Amino acid sequence: MHRRRPVIAIIGAGAVGGYYGARLAQHGHDVHFLLRRDFDAVRENGWTVRSHAGDFHMPPDRIDVHRDVQAMPRADLVIVALKTTANDQLQSLIAPLRTNDTLILTLQNGLGNEERLAELFGPDHILGGMAFVCINRTGPGALHHIAEGSIRLGEFHGGPRPRTQEIAGWFQSSGVPCDVLNDLRWGRWAKLVWNVPFNGLGAVLDWTTDRLIATEAGVQLVSAVMREIIAAAEALGLKMPPDMVERQLAHTRAMGAYQTSMQIDRREGRPLEVEAILCEPLRQARRANVATPHLHMLYELALLVDPATAG
Amino acid sequence: MHRRRPVIAIIGAGAVGGYYGARLAQHGHDVHFLLRRDFDAVRENGWTVRSHAGDFHMPPDRIDVHRDVQAMPRADLVIVALKTTANDQLQSLIAPLRTNDTLILTLQNGLGNEERLAELFGPDHILGGMAFVCINRTGPGALHHIAEGSIRLGEFHGGPRPRTQEIAGWFQSSGVPCDVLNDLRWGRWAKLVWNVPFNGLGAVLDWTTDRLIATEAGVQLVSAVMREIIAAAEALGLKMPPDMVERQLAHTRAMGAYQTSMQIDRREGRPLEVEAILCEPLRQARRANVATPHLHMLYELALLVDPATAG
Repeated sequence: MHRRRPVIAIIGAGAVGGYYGARLAQHGHDVHFLLRRDFDAVRENGWTVRSHAGDFHMPPDRIDVHRDVQAMPRADLVIVALKTTANDQLQSLIAPLRTNDTLILTLQNGLGNEERLAELFGPDHILGGMAFVCINRTGPGALHHIAEGSIRLGEFHGGPRPRTQEIAGWFQSSGVPCDVLNDLRWGRWAKLVWNVPFNGLGAVLDWTTDRLIATEAGVQLVSAVMREIIAAAEALGLKMPPDMVERQLAHTRAMGAYQTSMQIDRREGRPLEVEAILCEPLRQARRANVATPHLHMLYELALLVDPATAG
Repeated sequence: MHRRRPVIAIIGAGAVGGYYGARLAQHGHDVHFLLRRDFDAVRENGWTVRSHAGDFHMPPDRIDVHRDVQAMPRADLVIVALKTTANDQLQSLIAPLRTNDTLILTLQNGLGNEERLAELFGPDHILGGMAFVCINRTGPGALHHIAEGSIRLGEFHGGPRPRTQEIAGWFQSSGVPCDVLNDLRWGRWAKLVWNVPFNGLGAVLDWTTDRLIATEAGVQLVSAVMREIIAAAEALGLKMPPDMVERQLAHTRAMGAYQTSMQIDRREGRPLEVEAILCEPLRQARRANVATPHLHMLYELALLVDPATAG
């Protein structure tokens, strides 16, 4: 796709954007970060990543850091790692970075993000990906990579193309396991099976993942939520593996006391990603005529505790 | 019913038992309290009640305080104000107080308490009542009576009798508004319309009543829960007033920042009254073929946060 070194712009460099951008830069990619909160710290000291896969530091002279999108170069790939609660800024943040060939890969949570980007920039330029990573920001420019780290990505429109494989290759050669999905929607729903219970209940109860499944009552409730998401996915034609609930629980046990992003957002008084993680899945489940009472009440409870709406 | 002054025993004198017992004693009744936690304080200093209806003090020489039920006199009326989580003690606590004529009035929360007492002591001796009172224990022997204060009581078996009116009269002449119900089940379910959302959500979120209805999202969720309880009650043949949800909300707004008993139990690490307030209503709603998905998930969430089962 590119003779010269491709320009990669990371929009919304919180924990996820920071981590993957730092990995790409660590392996020689030309990475440009748009930062707000961490701009000063990262320009001064770069990214410091404490990682279960080996700590590393990405010094400021090997990355490019911006506070204003207007000062950034046109990008070959824009990686969107904004909170979905900031999706009203997608137009103003991405338009200045685009050429006719720019691809946009959203690593955001939940449903509806590719659709939004496709409306703004055309469906043919959009890819979506799920970050399977336990990562928390521990301070300005400082990340704690607790577990996992892979990405699954796919085309918004149709199956994989050479460009899909090429972008996956950039991650793969940067220490990031990356699969290409034949069906991005499948991947989105598969990830929701975990995200809905753990982000939803984690935020509502202000509990870490281990506490949510520490009792039989917790395992039962998390499993009930998961089964609803699986039922909705399957009604939408997306076949999930039969042992999915058990696998997700086993996998969560291995994470330890993990704070999901929605729990952290609640603690820090930021808007919750209710629309992308709970509401749009609920809407699609309803359209598919699948009863998802747990998802519905989780959505209602999340609205209650959402700092964006709470009194 | 009685020539001599009737003997009234209060079993489980937390905030509710302490308050109503102190009111009866204040108005000349022969009241005997079975106390555990507050035994020393009440024997020493009596009951001190800060009340929206006028503070009062019930000195120790005007009440009778016991730590051991075996030392108590036989009672004409046993008022049960135990937590329902201690219902396995009903036999051992009440049997020593009974004569063939002893009546037992449970003021406990939720459903199933009269049934339990009827199995143990015969249905003909059982009455049930709902305490409509905002009252918190603020220290040993110290109560804060925040709002309301009435009781509604009725016979477990059949409609009111002369004895029902007589007991109601004891309360009425002691500064406690008291209605006699034609149908106790109606009263139980009417009270659940408030108790399920406010105790349930209050415990799960650890929120006071005012916070639960401070936002539109909260009003919507509380109303949805109330509507389920109303639907279940009506399927059981218990007609509720059409404006019940609005009235309960208005009434709750007037309470201010009230901590329900279930929220307090959670905070203090005591078992939650999940069985009586959430599980038995859920069971009865199911038997009546009424869908109560919010009640179901509240029940599941309450199990999660219940100190009796939590890790």
